[in-house]
Amino acid sequence: MDARMMEAMAGEMSMAEMPAMDAAVMQACMDACAACEQACTVCSMQMMDCAPSCMNCADMCNTMMRAMLRMPGMAPASMMAMLDACIAMCQTCMDMCMMHADDSPVCAMCADACRACMDACMAVKDAMMAAA
Amino acid sequence: MDARMMEAMAGEMSMAEMPAMDAAVMQACMDACAACEQACTVCSMQMMDCAPSCMNCADMCNTMMRAMLRMPGMAPASMMAMLDACIAMCQTCMDMCMMHADDSPVCAMCADACRACMDACMAVKDAMMAAA
Amino acid sequence: MDARMMEAMAGEMSMAEMPAMDAAVMQACMDACAACEQACTVCSMQMMDCAPSCMNCADMCNTMMRAMLRMPGMAPASMMAMLDACIAMCQTCMDMCMMHADDSPVCAMCADACRACMDACMAVKDAMMAAA
Amino acid sequence: MDARMMEAMAGEMSMAEMPAMDAAVMQACMDACAACEQACTVCSMQMMDCAPSCMNCADMCNTMMRAMLRMPGMAPASMMAMLDACIAMCQTCMDMCMMHADDSPVCAMCADACRACMDACMAVKDAMMAAA
Repeated sequence: MDARMMEAMAGEMSMAEMPAMDAAVMQACMDACAACEQACTVCSMQMMDCAPSCMNCADMCNTMMRAMLRMPGMAPASMMAMLDACIAMCQTCMDMCMMHADDSPVCAMCADACRACMDACMAVKDAMMAAA
Repeated sequence: MDARMMEAMAGEMSMAEMPAMDAAVMQACMDACAACEQACTVCSMQMMDCAPSCMNCADMCNTMMRAMLRMPGMAPASMMAMLDACIAMCQTCMDMCMMHADDSPVCAMCADACRACMDACMAVKDAMMAAA
Repeated sequence: MDARMMEAMAGEMSMAEMPAMDAAVMQACMDACAACEQACTVCSMQMMDCAPSCMNCADMCNTMMRAMLRMPGMAPASMMAMLDACIAMCQTCMDMCMMHADDSPVCAMCADACRACMDACMAVKDAMMAAA
Repeated sequence: MDARMMEAMAGEMSMAEMPAMDAAVMQACMDACAACEQACTVCSMQMMDCAPSCMNCADMCNTMMRAMLRMPGMAPASMMAMLDACIAMCQTCMDMCMMHADDSPVCAMCADACRACMDACMAVKDAMMAAA
């Protein structure tokens, strides 16, 4: 996500109900969601038993990323619940992929992307709670 | 959702980790999610201040519906968290739309669809807990 | 798609650049796209070699349906190109599923949904050209 | 898109029906689609009259990016039609955003992202035709 995009978002994110938040934490989370959507989509192509959770995780990560690009449409409660859902979905997908991460480098990559996305979502939750 | 689709899904839903669940409750929830996605998409076209939450709700409802079509990719924890996120997002969208439901029949329709989707998601949660 | 939704859409669809079109043709196409998205999503769960085209088709059908719910954001040229893409993607998916339709009732259902979606998209194209 | 992802994709992209293609051209196109989806999503938040086309363009770009991550599910005809649809949708969105690009830096950014996405899709088309 480049500087011009970040500036554009800063202008629209002043929703009264949302706590002030470190823009860099949000940016990192959106990037992690986008990377996880891509990794999961590729991993689902392997037709291994992780595929259904990879597809679900790809959709949830895309929905999460878009929600962060549309903060005026979020309230703290829905934001927290969406972050929890994204974390839980990444956990499920990572658990499935870790079962054959030794045999499949793609699953190992996907599990890494899920872990990074979970961490980034947790950082947004922490930032929200610190700012509340 | 027609009978042939339901039969097809029944065949794939035997994931050991998911509790047995009334197929009719799931079917009703998928239909409510699909209807809510459409209502929110139409409502967002009005360019009123509910539009951002309508867009977020449309995405979350589509992701929820797809997840229910891909139950082998869900674990109980991620399923519960996704249902909670869908309920919370519908609540936020409904709250926004209710602010001008008297002036806009489209917002009234959208708020109704959000309420129906929330109820349907709660029914799935109840069924999951009863079966656990 | 119910009557209230149709009425809501009629109010927003008066984009000068789009030819007048039979609302019933559009409604039928949106319903066919939604049904095809669901059928393809279920079919992709079988992990047969049609799965990648089923996933692509599910995404294209959802994007097509949403575009028809957001006609003020379409121009005739983009509408035509999107319909062509949806038809081509359904064709690819149907071709894949037909290869094992005899063995898999889900693939047979998916191929039927693809065919119905293609027909519905062609009907919208015909209506657009007749109204132009 | 990082090196490990590219390597993972290279392994799955050997579909007989798809012409050999420069991986860098595909990678650039996926990155342009992802950037355009984000720019359009942000631009649609402004509630200007470009918003509906921005939303349509965001969905089409995401569908296009995913299709490129799932090449085993594409045939040359559907790939070409999807690229044409993405180009046409970006054109419509860019035309709308250019109308107020002087007043809105976000619209200017969005129009730039649409132009870059169109160029990247055309480069993929050129590569497909050269390899056919």
